[in-house]
Amino acid sequence: MYPNSIKNIIDCFKDLPGIGEKTAERLAFSLINFSKEKLTSFSEAIISVRDKITNCEICGNITEDKVCSICNDKERNNKIVFVVEKAKDISLFEKINAYNGKYHVLGGLISPLEGIGPDDININSLISRIKRDNVEEIILTLKPSIEGETTMQYIKKILENKNVKITKIATGIPIGTDIEYIDPMTLEFALEGRKDI
Amino acid sequence: MYPNSIKNIIDCFKDLPGIGEKTAERLAFSLINFSKEKLTSFSEAIISVRDKITNCEICGNITEDKVCSICNDKERNNKIVFVVEKAKDISLFEKINAYNGKYHVLGGLISPLEGIGPDDININSLISRIKRDNVEEIILTLKPSIEGETTMQYIKKILENKNVKITKIATGIPIGTDIEYIDPMTLEFALEGRKDI
Repeated sequence: MYPNSIKNIIDCFKDLPGIGEKTAERLAFSLINFSKEKLTSFSEAIISVRDKITNCEICGNITEDKVCSICNDKERNNKIVFVVEKAKDISLFEKINAYNGKYHVLGGLISPLEGIGPDDININSLISRIKRDNVEEIILTLKPSIEGETTMQYIKKILENKNVKITKIATGIPIGTDIEYIDPMTLEFALEGRKDI
Repeated sequence: MYPNSIKNIIDCFKDLPGIGEKTAERLAFSLINFSKEKLTSFSEAIISVRDKITNCEICGNITEDKVCSICNDKERNNKIVFVVEKAKDISLFEKINAYNGKYHVLGGLISPLEGIGPDDININSLISRIKRDNVEEIILTLKPSIEGETTMQYIKKILENKNVKITKIATGIPIGTDIEYIDPMTLEFALEGRKDI
């Protein structure tokens, strides 16, 4: 029923996460009202993602160079490394502007169910980096889930007897959230992690 | 903080309706995991919208040809014309598969507040089309709003004494909606339009 160009762009939008048929149609039709210049930029921006974005050789963050801007920053402390699941997670911590160390992107979590083992994610590069840079502390900031816990336990085990402190980010009740909406497991962790006031 | 390619594509996504900063970031990062082929198709699909999509010379529907597939369809009754605001509205009626007439896209509604007058939308082409094709009935399917009503009244007035029946789509309570969620104006229209059972 739609012209082919519209059908195609609807299909492209539907490939994006969280975009269903109706939203894809709405987005496709909105493009019709874009100027030719804007459509050209949009198309070029996608090609630029295709051709320029790569992963940092050191930490796995996204970058347009061999090494990302964070790894390249000599002002940052390379004795502390945040270990995150995805490159996007880095931006969350950078936004709070309270951290001056480095990052390491695993690119996934260990998940026996999905057939993802330790060698499928960037753990080996983390280990060699810890040795090379004499890293003093790694802070595991993986999501509190079975896969996250499995990955953290694995990293802890493999770094046993190496001279590096391993911590993990706190699990607890988010600020501003009513306790009645918190799941039992989070409550349990929050209780376990209680602090003197 | 993000590489330029990512910044650019986030900005492009933010230009789309209903897409805010956070969603744009999520969509941009999802592209990184697309295959090169998929990114190429996405980029080309946008270029194709830019270069191929135009408006049907007769009805204003979107098309890749001079005349859209609906206007070109000799099986369809050209004595009845649905008058809609946007090209996208056509797909809604086509999906219910209950209509075999033609369409006319106004491309907007009369709105003195926004400075949109009768000459800014495709009313003249509608009038000449009614004459040329001896159209017997036009069905106004514009949204029930001040602009919609103004536009309908204008069309009614300008077609006075022309031999064409003018109807409008019913205003009322949507199926499955509890009356308590219906606004007073809709209720008033629904009462006015009551039918014997």
